Amino acid sequence: MEFVKGIKEKETVEISDILTGGWFDREVSVRGAVHTVRDMGEFSFVVLRKYEGLVQCVFEDGKVEGMEAKTVREGMTIEVKGAVSREERAPGGFELRVSEVKVLSEPAKDSVMPIPISKWKMSTSLETKLSLRPIALRNIRERAIFKIQEGIVRGFRDFLFRNHFTEIRTPKIVAGNAEGGANVFKLEYFGKKAFLAQSPQVYKQTMVGVYDRVFEAAPVFRAEKHNTTRHLNEYTSLDFEMGYIDGFEDIMDMEAAILTYIFELLKKEYQKELKLLNIELPSTENIPAVRFDEAKQLVSEKYNRKIKNPYDLEPEEEILIGRYFKEEYGSDFVFVTHYPSKKRPFYAMDDPADNKFTLSFDLLFKGMEVTTGGQRIHSYEAQVEKMLKRGMDPADFTDYLMIFKHGMPPHGGLGIGLERLTMKILDEQNVRETTLFPRDVSRLEP
Amino acid sequence: MEFVKGIKEKETVEISDILTGGWFDREVSVRGAVHTVRDMGEFSFVVLRKYEGLVQCVFEDGKVEGMEAKTVREGMTIEVKGAVSREERAPGGFELRVSEVKVLSEPAKDSVMPIPISKWKMSTSLETKLSLRPIALRNIRERAIFKIQEGIVRGFRDFLFRNHFTEIRTPKIVAGNAEGGANVFKLEYFGKKAFLAQSPQVYKQTMVGVYDRVFEAAPVFRAEKHNTTRHLNEYTSLDFEMGYIDGFEDIMDMEAAILTYIFELLKKEYQKELKLLNIELPSTENIPAVRFDEAKQLVSEKYNRKIKNPYDLEPEEEILIGRYFKEEYGSDFVFVTHYPSKKRPFYAMDDPADNKFTLSFDLLFKGMEVTTGGQRIHSYEAQVEKMLKRGMDPADFTDYLMIFKHGMPPHGGLGIGLERLTMKILDEQNVRETTLFPRDVSRLEP
Repeated sequence: MEFVKGIKEKETVEISDILTGGWFDREVSVRGAVHTVRDMGEFSFVVLRKYEGLVQCVFEDGKVEGMEAKTVREGMTIEVKGAVSREERAPGGFELRVSEVKVLSEPAKDSVMPIPISKWKMSTSLETKLSLRPIALRNIRERAIFKIQEGIVRGFRDFLFRNHFTEIRTPKIVAGNAEGGANVFKLEYFGKKAFLAQSPQVYKQTMVGVYDRVFEAAPVFRAEKHNTTRHLNEYTSLDFEMGYIDGFEDIMDMEAAILTYIFELLKKEYQKELKLLNIELPSTENIPAVRFDEAKQLVSEKYNRKIKNPYDLEPEEEILIGRYFKEEYGSDFVFVTHYPSKKRPFYAMDDPADNKFTLSFDLLFKGMEVTTGGQRIHSYEAQVEKMLKRGMDPADFTDYLMIFKHGMPPHGGLGIGLERLTMKILDEQNVRETTLFPRDVSRLEP
Repeated sequence: MEFVKGIKEKETVEISDILTGGWFDREVSVRGAVHTVRDMGEFSFVVLRKYEGLVQCVFEDGKVEGMEAKTVREGMTIEVKGAVSREERAPGGFELRVSEVKVLSEPAKDSVMPIPISKWKMSTSLETKLSLRPIALRNIRERAIFKIQEGIVRGFRDFLFRNHFTEIRTPKIVAGNAEGGANVFKLEYFGKKAFLAQSPQVYKQTMVGVYDRVFEAAPVFRAEKHNTTRHLNEYTSLDFEMGYIDGFEDIMDMEAAILTYIFELLKKEYQKELKLLNIELPSTENIPAVRFDEAKQLVSEKYNRKIKNPYDLEPEEEILIGRYFKEEYGSDFVFVTHYPSKKRPFYAMDDPADNKFTLSFDLLFKGMEVTTGGQRIHSYEAQVEKMLKRGMDPADFTDYLMIFKHGMPPHGGLGIGLERLTMKILDEQNVRETTLFPRDVSRLEP
């Protein structure tokens, strides 16, 4: 009988091992994908790509066992054996002088790369890049974007674990439509009507009754017909919800601390990608918090703009509020608080001082909303009353109301749009740039 | 202007602070949900519940400021102030002698708990428990299940990060149906037909071309009509995919190492829950690997059972294979390798030694399949040929075939069913027990 016992040691080294100089002057084997081939006459430069970077390999004519330099093609994956030598002009300062090659896999015969993935900038339209996403992502800069995104999610999770949050996994196929509105995808579910969850709201509140503090980083679905640079029909929501709060300010405090932690993690573990993309991370030290109505007023005065709708922020106004707080306080972030009750969902807690407003907030980052959060109603009677006032039937929400009926601590939470947050960190102009495989009104593939 | 600067220090302590004895003989404030109230005549025991456990509070008549002991109700959340004293009969060995109470929130007037969540075992049917899930999860044992599940996912991710995997987030609304078959949920997508992803297969393979090694822990959707104790229509798949493998054995080696790491993490950080649920974790030291056809043969001989279908394993046979390797080798796990090509999807790599079989495997755990994995085809020509042989039109897979056309390393991967893995670790009899809010043919709520 054979037994599986765990990972076996491999004889190949990684590109990063070579680039740190540890193998200088020694013979090593390394595997990678052929990123570029440059024929220099009597020798060729073959640059290999792996997850951590690139390494230059020198193929001298007649000196390489296993294959001819001329037959090396972009997109092959190979294993090369050779001596590590210092070479200042090579990426990373080292190169491999190849003595032996083994082909691991080959691209299709006669295939021609439709997009120059080995170039620093691919200089092509977003549409082309998205249509060729499966290979365009092999570009060094493109893939760096999604390493940064990985780091954001890691930071979010790690920080919340340290602060006694429990990670939950809530269903995406749901019977109800918690956020209200028509922007919901419908599906047939064994003869019943079902929806795709627009947010984990109901479930994360439910789980506050169980674990006090919970979070989830998962997809949400919005059937919005807007085809803008900031809307997606499927995106990742970084959600948390916490009990035993003293007010909605606790939620903002937590978010500021999360962002601080994320940026520190990025600086520590994603330095290479930050440098590659030339990113300067914003400060989170003093994030201004301003009331919704005040913010509108300030912007209206400073930029000489009439207030059209006192109950909503237009994208244009968000941009101006962002600009105002950058100019006046040097902050890329601003919390806008006390949104009008009309524009917030039925679970938002109204401000006892003035119930036209809610104990809620948005976080704007460089003029764009990246978070919506606030305190929720925790009293059964208050929740039923607010539902009735809005013409909703409490009988449609039996499972949800159950949690209030049997007691919920004062609580609140928020949802951060991961792709938008990434977009703003990277100063991209379109949220699709920071979405691995975006879904929008006209794009369902790849 | 007000500024948000991060988390503010609170004046309350946590239940775990009290139970470690750090506050012995001192006055502290603590918040929690009223889990039980026991009227003892001149005083009452009020047990408070928070995420980390329970603490007993003593309310002596006439000695408590703020409210009467008699008015404390299950489901209230309160803040109590009192002196920490040693009490062997109290859960955790300490109790709080309360001098002051503040009510934070109250359950609905006249609400009666429909299920005894404060009992050790709720002794009720699974159906009732699921229908009352939003509050049934407040039971100490119920919630411990999902802490264990959290630990499994944490272990999976942490181990893969350490082994240079990149975390990805792939779309759940997709245009194609990669796994084949009819078990797919359909939805309307702005006038186009779309599906819910049955697995991230296509995308994780794509991302191997980008990052070499990738993983995702996310929901998958299967419109299967089976209503069994082991099927769910939405579940969490722990997926990874890795390039530059020498064979599908590398995938099994990685899984064995992941499981070892997960169980070590559980022992280290989830000791309380393991004890609460009385769980002994299985050994992963020597996991037998046996060929599909051999396994069938062995079981047929030992348990005197006729082989009905040489190309598939019946659930009954899986149970017997599990039993065989437990009896003969003392292992709760067994890798069954070389599944018949007929029963594996179009992307599975056939065994060059005999193309009726594939370089693939299932992992059985206590007689149930918890993982399917294997090596994938990486050659464009081979993939097109296998599609054609199966009557599939390669033109329907342009985006997928793009990755092979432009080169993919030899690669493979697997998907672990999180809820099934949890179920088997906990020796539960129904996968719904280890699913937070299960979705099955007849259940879409809560």
